[in-house]
Amino acid sequence: MEGCWGMKNSQIVIDSLPEDKLSQDHFRQINVPLPDVESGQVLIKTAAISIVAGARAGLQGSANYTTGPAVGKVMGGAGVGEVVSSNDEKFPEGVWVLGATGWQSYSALSTDSLTRIPSDRDPIDYLGPLGANGMAAYFGLLKVGRASRGDTVMVSAAAGSVGHFVGQMAKIAGCRVVGVCGNDLKCARLTDELGFDVAVNYKNHSFRKDLKCATPEGVDLYFDNTGGPILTSALFRMNVGGRIACCGVVSQYDTSSPNAGPKGIPGLLVNKRINMQGFLFFDYSNEYEPAREEISRWLNSGDLNSVNDEFRGLESAPEAFVNLLSGGNFGNRIVRLP
Amino acid sequence: MEGCWGMKNSQIVIDSLPEDKLSQDHFRQINVPLPDVESGQVLIKTAAISIVAGARAGLQGSANYTTGPAVGKVMGGAGVGEVVSSNDEKFPEGVWVLGATGWQSYSALSTDSLTRIPSDRDPIDYLGPLGANGMAAYFGLLKVGRASRGDTVMVSAAAGSVGHFVGQMAKIAGCRVVGVCGNDLKCARLTDELGFDVAVNYKNHSFRKDLKCATPEGVDLYFDNTGGPILTSALFRMNVGGRIACCGVVSQYDTSSPNAGPKGIPGLLVNKRINMQGFLFFDYSNEYEPAREEISRWLNSGDLNSVNDEFRGLESAPEAFVNLLSGGNFGNRIVRLP
Repeated sequence: MEGCWGMKNSQIVIDSLPEDKLSQDHFRQINVPLPDVESGQVLIKTAAISIVAGARAGLQGSANYTTGPAVGKVMGGAGVGEVVSSNDEKFPEGVWVLGATGWQSYSALSTDSLTRIPSDRDPIDYLGPLGANGMAAYFGLLKVGRASRGDTVMVSAAAGSVGHFVGQMAKIAGCRVVGVCGNDLKCARLTDELGFDVAVNYKNHSFRKDLKCATPEGVDLYFDNTGGPILTSALFRMNVGGRIACCGVVSQYDTSSPNAGPKGIPGLLVNKRINMQGFLFFDYSNEYEPAREEISRWLNSGDLNSVNDEFRGLESAPEAFVNLLSGGNFGNRIVRLP
Repeated sequence: MEGCWGMKNSQIVIDSLPEDKLSQDHFRQINVPLPDVESGQVLIKTAAISIVAGARAGLQGSANYTTGPAVGKVMGGAGVGEVVSSNDEKFPEGVWVLGATGWQSYSALSTDSLTRIPSDRDPIDYLGPLGANGMAAYFGLLKVGRASRGDTVMVSAAAGSVGHFVGQMAKIAGCRVVGVCGNDLKCARLTDELGFDVAVNYKNHSFRKDLKCATPEGVDLYFDNTGGPILTSALFRMNVGGRIACCGVVSQYDTSSPNAGPKGIPGLLVNKRINMQGFLFFDYSNEYEPAREEISRWLNSGDLNSVNDEFRGLESAPEAFVNLLSGGNFGNRIVRLP
């Protein structure tokens, strides 16, 4: 890349590891020289990064999704950007890629680890429906959870980056969809804008009763993004032979003392012959391409809406993350870089 | 049946429902006239009854296995006996049957609900390897848990009526078997008499360390009879892609305040992509006959040993049950009637 010399790479690094709640003070911004680009790598200028709750688990030391965070290291995460320096003909300068850029304006990444973004799609979609959020929703719902026509599907963190896709994809699959989230405005948006059949606010005192009313025929498939008390409530609503797809544990990430496990395990699993299956979307990486093709068709037809919840400027990433963990987002949380 | 008039039916009835620990005082023995035998029924003279931990859950009001226990009703349970009065040519007098006799010396049962015992087998086997205990072990291990050669299989309540079959069947399937039970003498018997590779006493302070030593390559399949803290310990030893077959919850039955659920759910399920499947053996009733044929071959060849842990006399049933719940049994707990 010509003209790079003297340019700085802006980074958000981990300043301290959180022992309890995460705050913006656990991060700081620094400027360093552009990274060296080694053989097999290309230099990428980050256009946007994805902020996801699972990254919080990595900071806990209890590895989940991300590995190896440490004080002084750049905060990890997926991003999209343009290749600005390359000797690789498959990833020439000017192409757009999805990769583990981290929270920084430039990164040197191995081309083996990159996904090339077709020129006919908005790269931002690769931080949403065509990226980790969409893959987790798609494989969790359809492969792990085996959603099928007529099922009642319940999803927690339903307004979240994964959840808002889960509910819409379940509607496409012919299911009745019940979303659970943490405020009434989100509930209204889920039903009014995204086609959920019902949405229930778990913070209301009447939650258990509300959930019961919302699931008069029980729950066939619960897509669990939270664990904790919502999982316990779901267990009591599950039908015999029901399935639980365990995608994430957002109720447990931002704390030093995770809850005890849900009551009813394993008793209710036995009585109701429930199947619980944990999964990580990247185990399905062989199947990303057909999944992306199908999701692209849904996006093009308007059957699937991707809602982005954006912050602007790398310096806003810590705030975007802390706010996400307290349930501040609706849809894919993204930080756009200038 | 000739000569029955004037004979009495001895019964153990529920005298009060337990609110905390079960004791013998929750039962009492009465003598009543022989039951009327209705159309479609035969009269059975009980030879032996099976005492199982799952029956405790029914007494809790939280239905599990058994339904509808109530003060004054005969305690429910499976038994084997001889048909002593019949108008049904498929179940003539003199044949032996397995059925829901309850804790009583005579019962009138619908022939639809009975299993006829072949004359070449000891009827007692139908309260052990060819009855509920054997079916739960067989289907839980092989169908639900999909045990396969080379797996490390862990089983809790390993000296129990189901567990002692699970470990032996896993050995037959070519697995490495680690049993967990509550005293050192049982541990020794599991390895010395029944061929378990290792057995670990969960009551020892060093249990977690002992379990780790016993599973140097982790656990591929955990057959859970207990729930509670042993399940939590198992979760930490599970391999990626491991399976948990949830058969029973003996740690939770004999208490008014069940434990909180196991820590690590759903977090460890996600990270390790673990599958948990609750099951009830009677969902496999279509497959009992081939299972019984295979188990009979194992019994005949000596590959499978059925250990009976017997009490004598109907009046001993409450003691046999209370003692079972405190872990007093090794193998199938049976009460023989005179």
